[in-house]
Amino acid sequence: MGQVKVNGHTNGHNGLNGVNGHSKEDYSSFLTRHRPQETYSLTSIEPESFYGKLRTLYANKVLKTQLEQLKKQGSYDAFKLKWHPVYDVRRLYGGKARTDGIPPSLFWESDVGKWIEGACYFLSSPNAKRFSHACEFDAAIQELVDMIEKAQQPDGYLNIYFTAVDQEGRFKNLRDLHEMYNAGHLLEAALAHYRYTGSRQFIDVMIKNVECFMNQFGPAENQLHGYPGHPEFELAILRLYSLTQDRKHLEFAKYLLEARGVKRDDQNGETYFVWEAKQRKDEIVAPTMDTIEDVWYHQAHKPIHDQEDVLGHSVRAFYLLTAAADLGGAFLNDAKRLWSDAVDNKMYATGGFGTEPRFEGFSPIPHHLPQSTGEGGCYAETCASIAVMMTSERILSHELSGKIRDVLELCLLNNTLGGGNLEGNQFSYANKQASWGNEDEIRHDWFEVCCCPGNVSRQLGMLGGYTWSVDLDEDKKTINLNIYLLLSATRTIPLPNNQSATVTMKSDMPWNGATQWDFKAPEGWKWNVRLPKPDYAENIKVSESTEEVQPGFLTLSLASTSSLTQSFNMPIRLLAPHIATGQDTLTVARGPIVYTAEAYDNEAIEAAYKHFEGVGITSNTTFTEIEEIIHGIPVILLQADQSAYALNELKDDQAYRVVGKDHLARSWRKLDKGIKFVPWFARANRGGKGHLRTAFLRADEALAQS
Amino acid sequence: MGQVKVNGHTNGHNGLNGVNGHSKEDYSSFLTRHRPQETYSLTSIEPESFYGKLRTLYANKVLKTQLEQLKKQGSYDAFKLKWHPVYDVRRLYGGKARTDGIPPSLFWESDVGKWIEGACYFLSSPNAKRFSHACEFDAAIQELVDMIEKAQQPDGYLNIYFTAVDQEGRFKNLRDLHEMYNAGHLLEAALAHYRYTGSRQFIDVMIKNVECFMNQFGPAENQLHGYPGHPEFELAILRLYSLTQDRKHLEFAKYLLEARGVKRDDQNGETYFVWEAKQRKDEIVAPTMDTIEDVWYHQAHKPIHDQEDVLGHSVRAFYLLTAAADLGGAFLNDAKRLWSDAVDNKMYATGGFGTEPRFEGFSPIPHHLPQSTGEGGCYAETCASIAVMMTSERILSHELSGKIRDVLELCLLNNTLGGGNLEGNQFSYANKQASWGNEDEIRHDWFEVCCCPGNVSRQLGMLGGYTWSVDLDEDKKTINLNIYLLLSATRTIPLPNNQSATVTMKSDMPWNGATQWDFKAPEGWKWNVRLPKPDYAENIKVSESTEEVQPGFLTLSLASTSSLTQSFNMPIRLLAPHIATGQDTLTVARGPIVYTAEAYDNEAIEAAYKHFEGVGITSNTTFTEIEEIIHGIPVILLQADQSAYALNELKDDQAYRVVGKDHLARSWRKLDKGIKFVPWFARANRGGKGHLRTAFLRADEALAQS
Repeated sequence: MGQVKVNGHTNGHNGLNGVNGHSKEDYSSFLTRHRPQETYSLTSIEPESFYGKLRTLYANKVLKTQLEQLKKQGSYDAFKLKWHPVYDVRRLYGGKARTDGIPPSLFWESDVGKWIEGACYFLSSPNAKRFSHACEFDAAIQELVDMIEKAQQPDGYLNIYFTAVDQEGRFKNLRDLHEMYNAGHLLEAALAHYRYTGSRQFIDVMIKNVECFMNQFGPAENQLHGYPGHPEFELAILRLYSLTQDRKHLEFAKYLLEARGVKRDDQNGETYFVWEAKQRKDEIVAPTMDTIEDVWYHQAHKPIHDQEDVLGHSVRAFYLLTAAADLGGAFLNDAKRLWSDAVDNKMYATGGFGTEPRFEGFSPIPHHLPQSTGEGGCYAETCASIAVMMTSERILSHELSGKIRDVLELCLLNNTLGGGNLEGNQFSYANKQASWGNEDEIRHDWFEVCCCPGNVSRQLGMLGGYTWSVDLDEDKKTINLNIYLLLSATRTIPLPNNQSATVTMKSDMPWNGATQWDFKAPEGWKWNVRLPKPDYAENIKVSESTEEVQPGFLTLSLASTSSLTQSFNMPIRLLAPHIATGQDTLTVARGPIVYTAEAYDNEAIEAAYKHFEGVGITSNTTFTEIEEIIHGIPVILLQADQSAYALNELKDDQAYRVVGKDHLARSWRKLDKGIKFVPWFARANRGGKGHLRTAFLRADEALAQS
Repeated sequence: MGQVKVNGHTNGHNGLNGVNGHSKEDYSSFLTRHRPQETYSLTSIEPESFYGKLRTLYANKVLKTQLEQLKKQGSYDAFKLKWHPVYDVRRLYGGKARTDGIPPSLFWESDVGKWIEGACYFLSSPNAKRFSHACEFDAAIQELVDMIEKAQQPDGYLNIYFTAVDQEGRFKNLRDLHEMYNAGHLLEAALAHYRYTGSRQFIDVMIKNVECFMNQFGPAENQLHGYPGHPEFELAILRLYSLTQDRKHLEFAKYLLEARGVKRDDQNGETYFVWEAKQRKDEIVAPTMDTIEDVWYHQAHKPIHDQEDVLGHSVRAFYLLTAAADLGGAFLNDAKRLWSDAVDNKMYATGGFGTEPRFEGFSPIPHHLPQSTGEGGCYAETCASIAVMMTSERILSHELSGKIRDVLELCLLNNTLGGGNLEGNQFSYANKQASWGNEDEIRHDWFEVCCCPGNVSRQLGMLGGYTWSVDLDEDKKTINLNIYLLLSATRTIPLPNNQSATVTMKSDMPWNGATQWDFKAPEGWKWNVRLPKPDYAENIKVSESTEEVQPGFLTLSLASTSSLTQSFNMPIRLLAPHIATGQDTLTVARGPIVYTAEAYDNEAIEAAYKHFEGVGITSNTTFTEIEEIIHGIPVILLQADQSAYALNELKDDQAYRVVGKDHLARSWRKLDKGIKFVPWFARANRGGKGHLRTAFLRADEALAQS
């Protein structure tokens, strides 16, 4: 290949040397591919830029809020292994057990893990000194790591509930009880901690914990052949391998992916979850399960290579596919195939995924995308969009694709960013496209199962790693720079012989398509740059001539010290969903930003038409852009220049009306003003009652009537 | 009141005298109200008319098909109480138990009961002699009744499974295991049998069986306070009371309605189903149940008087409401309230009810009416439309309402009639509004749980009872005749002193709005007639002057011997669903007949646009009427005079398109022909692959484009 990897470990750590060497036979590119978690700290994001301000919010306020919530929730102290009332599931649910048999504390390790991981990313970012609570966070991280270390059992086992409460329950129910899921998040935290501190304290605990799992689980006859019910461990183990380069970690992650959904003779011809459930002789099932064989919710109904449709729990699906894409080979094809099914057939305009609140997952039906509870459900969990970002980034690390980049950016700037408010103290879990009935689409302080808030922090913490990737071609002295996100940042690129290069990017995105770069490399080096060619961009101009070598990316070559500019227009677009949705609606978008309308900006209209039900806009609507600062974050709101329309009311007792009869004819009433739209991510930030709608009826026929 | 009931018992039986007299305190009108099951045999439906031909089909072919299927299924012989492989539930489902724990044989008594009941109605109709298999049916009925009599246990208990297989299971799970449901259907069969034959053999068995239940269940301290998980027993007991006039039967039915959903101190403050489930210590739940407390699927989550929305399993809901309406008083209000919720908010254009295949029930969300599996579900079970007919008729027996009459007729002529093919040998259970994916909307020979086919037979068997109702005012010598259905028939009306009157109706309905009547009554009597004023009728002309005393009915007075004509226009209507459905579609209707389009009539269009997805028609479409005979039944097909349109295809990999960009703009392509429509009930009768669509996209904007 002639290329070497820029490891980019903070503090100069160059990785733990594994016991075994690694061959290139199957997954030869694995160790040389870019990873955001290894490279984020080489990128300094401009603090006064849009993304920089968001990062400051997360570093100064969100992480602090989350730490306080973890302490209040009990998870912070839970590693002390003392009794906590939450463990008494029957008390907690008013005497009723959850049907899935899962106490919410079974996610506590992951909540704490994600906080540590996110905090470590922020604290090891180039501008960490400017963050308000850095010392407090450092102390909390140390205290947590000390508690975690003490909570580990002599055999390496590490899980709060199955140590403090139910030791007999260990390894009995991988399908539901999240031992591997939690271990994965703690492992990711330990990897971030090692890169931040250089201390092996936490990572050694977790390597010992991984070995505990590896003793128990694997393909050998004397092992159980299990894998996680909620994927996560796979992707974490692969990240561990990228650090340790210990072949047995690669093999274990590979085993976890390969064993999934496979029927084995030594499991009575069943898959692991079915065999395991029969061993338990229990009947506890997920809400989607008609029988214990019914494990599509867990993506364990068949081997991954045989899965044609993306099914089940959205976050589980994309954590699994992140590992699959990372591993590469045939698993990369699986990730691409199922990613396409999700993005082409099961995605909301906001980059949200998951229709079914009942199981937090995909409708099995392509383009079945109801917008609200009233239409039959909508979920769009924050974590699911993050998981799609993760998978997208892993696929991009193998091959550039503008469509995948566009989706990564869409998920980031809409459903992921919208997972937190702009004051840094409230969060959303489900993100419905429209409110309905007595529901209010507002954010909340915390959740009983609180996966999403910490997940947003992690993504913003390592945002520099998502911004671009670098490959060096030392033979040709070429720096290959692939730009994923247009924002304002500077990246240092270490070169051989203690040399380095830098690239500085100044961008008006996501609000305007003007970006400029300054490249500086030592004499003799050159740059090979791939710029995004977003699907939403029009009239793209680049100051150098380019070629579209990879679809959706513009390639150009530059001398060692160069400048570059790119500009494009981002006309406001009205998006209509696929015919098969059965929805004849328009959604407003501008560049990568998708808009929604809130009662807050449209009081009169929403008061007359609750949740904007029956309200439409026309295809020829134009807009005035309004710059506004919401809690310190600059945004552009859009005021429609044309009045909205409302369908004339129908009799309430009339399920059907006869077209053409005057008293029942469908007709539109012109309202006296246009609708004002706010970026989806910035919704529910200025008060208001949480009534909103994203997709409006297309009222083009009203034009003919008027 | 001054009115006496025309009992109309066949063979002159005037009812069994009950042990107790009856007071008028609460439900005084109960015994004097019209009942189709008591009056059908007074009406002779013209064999060569539309309805007459359908009845001949059912009498000659459908009943024969169903008898053969019952024998093949095993239910016919099951009353011999021998072992049958179906009882081994685990074997049957390939080793997997149904999650509801219900072997399909637990419905067998009801299948047999409905067949006996339907056969008795046909055999005791005025034109029974013309039916082909009358002698064979008589013999089968006698053999079944003999077996049923022998299967009864000394204490009156009568249930195949809980006698032959699981005696310990008796009365342990009223929620799921259908002991009361089955008893109800056998009781209805026995009532029909008694009226047909005059023999007390079957009805005495069933009265003894009812007493067995009454010993066990009731409000007293030493009784269990249960009621059926699948309502049916209530309405059957009320029918029994109308025969026996035994007050304790009324009281028992009243108890079953009053106890439902009530929490009791002597059940640990729980409702019966919750208490009962806890007694069993089991976790078997219906697919809708998150916990054992979650019994809205069974309409047992709260007392009937407190139920605001119609919820859960559609057939259960309307069997319950049929009893509620029949009993009257406050329960009549419940029936009217929940009927309105169903009809106004949860009804398909075809008179179908139930969105959710998963639990055969209503979406809890008003106007959430997806048309196909691809849109998120559609069920519209045949039995549910029949149950709504039953409830509607019971409400009409209290008070006339044109809207309720219209719904009764809509349900009969569309989703009920469509439950069987026109060859008399195949049936449908679910009736989706559109086909989708690899599904074919065709009928089937039989079903594992086969409630629907026998239910259609019953309705057609007693059609004369649904046609009209009569009240005599002896003091004023007035015959009050309320006409529900316009068809060709003659009714005999017994009068005091061995006199009688007759009314003959000749109608072109459901195809044309011309109807004429001849009335003949003895000198001194007069007629007070209420004619339907259907919502779909225009330019109604009646040869006498009328007054709309009750909404949707035209009242007039006539001398003892009179004639009358009514005519109205039935222009083809295009129906648009309620805004809240989110569906901008048009459905074709003509009078009470709703139309659908099949691939059979529209091969080229359907071949190009599978399942007619993306195909639209415009609001100004006109039609040519085509008279056709399908398997002997005359129907009118409709050929659209304007070409249909199809949305121009979208890229398959595009979840959203940008409006206004040429290559992605929404636009319509004019097809080279119009769509041909067939009555919904007559669909899937002439071959073809079962691809169909009922609601087409409204393509009005295409008019502006062309």
